[in-house]
Amino acid sequence: MNPERSPRHGPALGVDIGGTKVLGVALDADDEVAAEARATTPHSGIFDPNDPAAGDGAAAVAGAVAEVVAALRRATDDDGRAPVGVGVPGMCDRQGVLRFAPNLAAASGADIAALLAERLPDTILVIENDATCAAVAEHRLGAAAGDENVLLVTLGTGIGGGVISEGRVLLGASGFAGEIGHMVVDPAGPPCPCGRRGCWERYASGGGLARLAREAAYAGRLPAVVEAAGGDAEAVRGEDVTKAALAGDPGALGVMEDLGWWVALGLTNLTAVLDPARIVIGGGLVEVGELLLTPTKKAYAEQVEGGRRRPDVAIVPAALGERAGAVGAALTARDRR
Amino acid sequence: MNPERSPRHGPALGVDIGGTKVLGVALDADDEVAAEARATTPHSGIFDPNDPAAGDGAAAVAGAVAEVVAALRRATDDDGRAPVGVGVPGMCDRQGVLRFAPNLAAASGADIAALLAERLPDTILVIENDATCAAVAEHRLGAAAGDENVLLVTLGTGIGGGVISEGRVLLGASGFAGEIGHMVVDPAGPPCPCGRRGCWERYASGGGLARLAREAAYAGRLPAVVEAAGGDAEAVRGEDVTKAALAGDPGALGVMEDLGWWVALGLTNLTAVLDPARIVIGGGLVEVGELLLTPTKKAYAEQVEGGRRRPDVAIVPAALGERAGAVGAALTARDRR
Repeated sequence: MNPERSPRHGPALGVDIGGTKVLGVALDADDEVAAEARATTPHSGIFDPNDPAAGDGAAAVAGAVAEVVAALRRATDDDGRAPVGVGVPGMCDRQGVLRFAPNLAAASGADIAALLAERLPDTILVIENDATCAAVAEHRLGAAAGDENVLLVTLGTGIGGGVISEGRVLLGASGFAGEIGHMVVDPAGPPCPCGRRGCWERYASGGGLARLAREAAYAGRLPAVVEAAGGDAEAVRGEDVTKAALAGDPGALGVMEDLGWWVALGLTNLTAVLDPARIVIGGGLVEVGELLLTPTKKAYAEQVEGGRRRPDVAIVPAALGERAGAVGAALTARDRR
Repeated sequence: MNPERSPRHGPALGVDIGGTKVLGVALDADDEVAAEARATTPHSGIFDPNDPAAGDGAAAVAGAVAEVVAALRRATDDDGRAPVGVGVPGMCDRQGVLRFAPNLAAASGADIAALLAERLPDTILVIENDATCAAVAEHRLGAAAGDENVLLVTLGTGIGGGVISEGRVLLGASGFAGEIGHMVVDPAGPPCPCGRRGCWERYASGGGLARLAREAAYAGRLPAVVEAAGGDAEAVRGEDVTKAALAGDPGALGVMEDLGWWVALGLTNLTAVLDPARIVIGGGLVEVGELLLTPTKKAYAEQVEGGRRRPDVAIVPAALGERAGAVGAALTARDRR
């Protein structure tokens, strides 16, 4: 057996459970993506603490993961020996129980590890927070390769976070570290599904953009966008604003500036706490590129404690795109198998 | 030479530069405090970014440290071989330059390591953030002994922080991690000497208590305290409120509840990011004990993400009192010599 190709370096599968889709990849022994598979996330939705059905869809979610794993195994002729990593959104403990998942009501509270073990017998399974997985992937193979102090932020439905400190993943006492979207940045702000008010993810996520967009629409700052949406300010979505901003609409560009300001607010808070050398921004929102990154970097430079007295912190887009979580889940499974 | 008494385990000196005093201790080989010395911090004050004299008092500060070290050496018959650790408030880089110190204007920007090397020739010197030192001390010898994921928070003039993650000190890329007082928790809040608005330390420090006290006084919620202060709401200080609260004054107890709520807000934010098993609260404010800890713990339990779905986080007072920073500086000097 070639030691360079020991199980620690062999193929691995990774699956990322997102709010809308379950995305899986098979990594070969050289860390290349050999196959990809996906399914729709069943029973997704925002957590309502008063909904007695919250968590009841966990079996269906686990079924979707098993289906994606089966597809990856077929595509790579894997006999079930490759370890499987699964990235989950929310507070996942070290036993693989998803203790709290405000953005995946279907599975909040569920014992994901047990549900998956039933459906994937004789499989080496590792469950980890999705953004932590993405941080591992970007640190190992992506936009933060070579940096030892890294903050990864995913701006999607909510905000996820993963921290690399001196080259090691920061997990915390229970594995819950990196729940950065639920820093309160305005105690009088809008309510969050997590139960608090004014969480950062109410401002700097896809949902936050939608809210900023509606506020701007009602304030008359997005006339062209409102007209394109049929004249109804309430109907304006985040995508309408990013599309208009890409086309140069001044009101839409203003909303993107506001969004960048809120993104920077959280990033500067996290810089004060963690002092990263590099911040990698992933998730759906970053697909608009400099439209968001430019105002974010400008506001960050203005706000960060110590300003020019501290070394510049690089703020860069994620390199692995929507696959980061799945790739990192595969790497994590291989590391911890 | 007894290997148990190698220099790694020998005596060490530690000095903590605070906003009002410079406090030093000599630790013997068994980690007992063999001597203590103190001096008044010269030219202390709150940082004003427009003050051209900011940082000009650094030489005097270094002189006070040297004076304290000399006193400790005399008291312990040390010939200058014991390593000296110095805890400094603010962003201290790995070369011992205090890049930014909003709460110690006199030394902000100064090369503390160079200034001390001049005054303490042939001395092994280690410079580190003061709250990081306190975290090391509480983790090794105090209220967090045995816990591997610890957050230490000092509530004093400002707020300092030190983080232990899986048993290791979290330093960050430049050594600036743990600047937790400068998380913005209300972007429309009062201006902070750091240049931002609504930093956590504007609410949950000694200065924050003074502000809450004045607000309550103007709102007529502290009639007895205002009367005792000569009838002038503006003259009400934080100490007046803690004293009145200890005596059972309902208005003062209400201010302490508000203070506890703000302390908890920051602690829950930091719990989301770091997931500590234990939070140790030190600094002058915690000397009032349960008067602050009880409302803090109550608000923390109500606000923390995941609530009862996560293991309880212990919130405890620091065990080493005002000496924690100096003891931790000595331990750090011995570790890194």
